[in-house]
Amino acid sequence: MTGFYPVLAIATETETADPSLILAGVLLSLVMIYFASKLGGELCSRIGLPAVLGELVGGVIIGVSAFKFLVFPEGGLGAEDSLIIQLLQNTANLTPGTEEAVFHSMSEVISVLSELGVIILLFEIGLESDLKELIRVGPSAAIVAVVGVAVPFILGTLGLLYIFHLPLVPSVFAGAALTATSIGITAKVLAELGKLSSEEGQIIIGAAVLDDILGIIVLAVVASLAKTGEVQVSQIVYLIITAATFLIGTILLGRLISPWIVSMVDGMKTRGSILITGIIFAFILAYIANVIQLEAILGAFAAGLVLAETEKRKELEKQIIPVADIFVPIFFVCVGAKTDLSVLNPAIPTNREGLIIASFLILVAIIGKVVTGYTVWGQPTLNKLAIGVGMIPRGEVGLVFAGVGSASGALDPATDAAIIVMVIATTFIAPPLLKLVFKDEPVEGETVIN
Amino acid sequence: MTGFYPVLAIATETETADPSLILAGVLLSLVMIYFASKLGGELCSRIGLPAVLGELVGGVIIGVSAFKFLVFPEGGLGAEDSLIIQLLQNTANLTPGTEEAVFHSMSEVISVLSELGVIILLFEIGLESDLKELIRVGPSAAIVAVVGVAVPFILGTLGLLYIFHLPLVPSVFAGAALTATSIGITAKVLAELGKLSSEEGQIIIGAAVLDDILGIIVLAVVASLAKTGEVQVSQIVYLIITAATFLIGTILLGRLISPWIVSMVDGMKTRGSILITGIIFAFILAYIANVIQLEAILGAFAAGLVLAETEKRKELEKQIIPVADIFVPIFFVCVGAKTDLSVLNPAIPTNREGLIIASFLILVAIIGKVVTGYTVWGQPTLNKLAIGVGMIPRGEVGLVFAGVGSASGALDPATDAAIIVMVIATTFIAPPLLKLVFKDEPVEGETVIN
Repeated sequence: MTGFYPVLAIATETETADPSLILAGVLLSLVMIYFASKLGGELCSRIGLPAVLGELVGGVIIGVSAFKFLVFPEGGLGAEDSLIIQLLQNTANLTPGTEEAVFHSMSEVISVLSELGVIILLFEIGLESDLKELIRVGPSAAIVAVVGVAVPFILGTLGLLYIFHLPLVPSVFAGAALTATSIGITAKVLAELGKLSSEEGQIIIGAAVLDDILGIIVLAVVASLAKTGEVQVSQIVYLIITAATFLIGTILLGRLISPWIVSMVDGMKTRGSILITGIIFAFILAYIANVIQLEAILGAFAAGLVLAETEKRKELEKQIIPVADIFVPIFFVCVGAKTDLSVLNPAIPTNREGLIIASFLILVAIIGKVVTGYTVWGQPTLNKLAIGVGMIPRGEVGLVFAGVGSASGALDPATDAAIIVMVIATTFIAPPLLKLVFKDEPVEGETVIN
Repeated sequence: MTGFYPVLAIATETETADPSLILAGVLLSLVMIYFASKLGGELCSRIGLPAVLGELVGGVIIGVSAFKFLVFPEGGLGAEDSLIIQLLQNTANLTPGTEEAVFHSMSEVISVLSELGVIILLFEIGLESDLKELIRVGPSAAIVAVVGVAVPFILGTLGLLYIFHLPLVPSVFAGAALTATSIGITAKVLAELGKLSSEEGQIIIGAAVLDDILGIIVLAVVASLAKTGEVQVSQIVYLIITAATFLIGTILLGRLISPWIVSMVDGMKTRGSILITGIIFAFILAYIANVIQLEAILGAFAAGLVLAETEKRKELEKQIIPVADIFVPIFFVCVGAKTDLSVLNPAIPTNREGLIIASFLILVAIIGKVVTGYTVWGQPTLNKLAIGVGMIPRGEVGLVFAGVGSASGALDPATDAAIIVMVIATTFIAPPLLKLVFKDEPVEGETVIN
């Protein structure tokens, strides 16, 4: 019982963070996160923008760029930068000297909750997807993914090399950052628009999943290039084989064991059997995907796809909604909160140079993805513009590229800032654009979960 | 995106724990927790025992007493004692030297999730409670609570002083540990039996809430007695005033603002409005209760009580169920996992002495609470035995008493072990006993949420 802990902490050691204060910090952070997500989401949906854009903007407002309620140590920030820590000092008798410990622990908990958020989102998206449809549109999705990686990478790298005369390594890095697609943001907007199970929606989801895998490979290549100056072919082969084996393996194996999962759940008598069984399955696959150096979200998505094929789909979908409502906003608000808008300030000289490069990167980022839709042949009724627009947001994936580049020392401040500006622009532009390009079409016969 | 982080971690610093590994550890821990909770819960409900007992036993089996999958640093254990860390080493390329950091971060996240679990449980219990009924049975509940604190404390302390000839301080400490009631375990069993909104159920819940407050005061008294040898009257007065102000204040104020909350929710358009608004309210009150040195769960319970009075009750109850199904098992499994059964091993000499004292404490623990039911006057139809039995489990509250006592140096190993044995016995005996004493009665017209 938490309230007891202050006494316990006095009685025991003082150098570690008091668990009661960590809990207080987490509670306060979650209150701010939920408040920002609802306020932003409601305002955006009232002016006709996707709610998820509001959650991102809500995150920016409470994050490092504005009010600094929710800041994370990754950006080199400490406890003194966090307004939540200051609130704890003023309200919760935070012992001097333990701020840093509380700040780090609290941030770690919120970060994990945010990652669980995107895992649960992708599990829900998988549940709402249609494996047969995904396989049917597979070839189109593969073309979209490959073109959406190749075109921005080539255009971006060559442009920086020959127009801006940057050295090779930063040019390649910036080009690589242009290849990313944030599956989370795109999937959420599609779900809000009720377009997730449309043909366009399934092509975008399929392409975004493949793009995630390609992104892991591209990042491995450029990271080893930046670090050792050469490309480790064995690592790339390993990544390609594990990714293919994992996706095909889990789906084949999952279809074999899913009837057994269903009959096991039917035999259970306690509360929440279907939900907990589904979550166990999703977390196991997420864990496996994580440890084989893929992404946890790919495992959760595969788990959702497999369970969507069973008769329990509807029940599971219904029960996962409130769980997703609790976890998913943490992810989007944290993405916003970690976005540092100070790179947009033209008063800082390196930013000015960065903003010029950024304008070029944004152009390439949009064109490079929009063209992908038009590579899908022979389907005149398809909304090809929507497919390309759906691939635009770089989101958290793009920020990871920027983070790796900046940490490896391969990027000068201007190029680093330019990449971040490009990520911000594409992330925030994509939701309203996507809504716009889908505007003239009627919503299909599915649940609008906005 | 988590899968990217291994590369990120290589590129940046290595002394801190890799976020991807912390996520992997949390995912694996949650899989074990959910697996244990479902296996234990299902087995127990099949042999006619409450499912929550199975979750506790499941926790014991994966915890420090048996397979050591889920262990926590509080018990002086390190990364090398955790099977999950070993699994990470074998499957996830855990870098040598970072085990301790990953172990601590992972344990911290699971601990906070477990605390959020009991907060959400109490919010749900509050939602399913009836404020008018609670106020009506308030005097009975108050008598039950006060008698349930006074009788075990006096019997226990005097018995240890005069039968076992222990010194004053350990006797008082053991007596204090006897006063606790685990509101979580009792409430969960009542909910499973469909007895939560029965008159007995509401008396037990009311008394358990008051007992929690009395427990905080008792703990503050004995802790300052053990530490300074005297009792700080000002601290006690402060605790009594804040507890009374908080409970009465939140309920009065809550009733004033709840119509405003309802109309605000009615105006919202985005998904999960009612759930998120309810959770914000619950977390704010939990935070306030936490920082004024009460317990977070009291705030969550008060929030549930207030919202139960509104027209949104049914909708909120329905949506909180899947969220509780995800969070609450973490709490019960962790309570089980932290329970160290090695104190029951009679081969260790101090344990033998401890087991004799423990037998006495268990006797007092049961008698001291069972008599409380009979102090409720003038209601011949009331199941008085059930009320007393409902107050028996000491659960995690009792373990906090033992922890504070042991850390303050006031308890010798034998008495410390005796208190832990008493806590274990009462915690594990209470659920089946409670089911037994309610057995002959028909389930009332309410949802059985087992």
